[in-house]
Amino acid sequence: MVKLVVLYGSPDDPAAFDEHYNSTHVPLAQKIPNVRRFEAGKVLGTPDGGSPPFYLMAELWFDSAEELASAMGTPEGQETAGDVASFATGGATMMIAEV
Amino acid sequence: MVKLVVLYGSPDDPAAFDEHYNSTHVPLAQKIPNVRRFEAGKVLGTPDGGSPPFYLMAELWFDSAEELASAMGTPEGQETAGDVASFATGGATMMIAEV
Repeated sequence: MVKLVVLYGSPDDPAAFDEHYNSTHVPLAQKIPNVRRFEAGKVLGTPDGGSPPFYLMAELWFDSAEELASAMGTPEGQETAGDVASFATGGATMMIAEV
Repeated sequence: MVKLVVLYGSPDDPAAFDEHYNSTHVPLAQKIPNVRRFEAGKVLGTPDGGSPPFYLMAELWFDSAEELASAMGTPEGQETAGDVASFATGGATMMIAEV
């Protein structure tokens, strides 16, 4: 399988980020076809008590890199990807990993 | 649940990293008690074709933050954590996320 990993930097307004993420972005992501597993996680901290490098991370698992590319190219995938810029004021680092 | 996320930067010698990671580090991690799920993923790239920010990522899921802290405090957890410095020549960014 492969997964799309999205690492969100600390937003300017965490409450506004959370509101948009939960009420708009996750419902959009849930419409992306062929997602085998979705998980979002709020970063609580680091093992050594330091400042965490990211605010929230999300992962979407697909059966293959081809399925991932195809899914993100659908209107639902494009709308979800396009929505990121509307709320990710701390930036969003994306990568694809093979698992 | 909570998870420990480890983001490895690009190592000086990828082949040596892979060898140590697969033959030594993963077996150590598999001895950590109360891990509900373990997943490691080699980073293939980014959606826009840019250079990926990390080389490999690993996640260990636990039932709670208390379980995670307790597990990482065991001899097996300490040995696994201590092993990171022996091969992660590109650095290792760690964070704890609530899922």
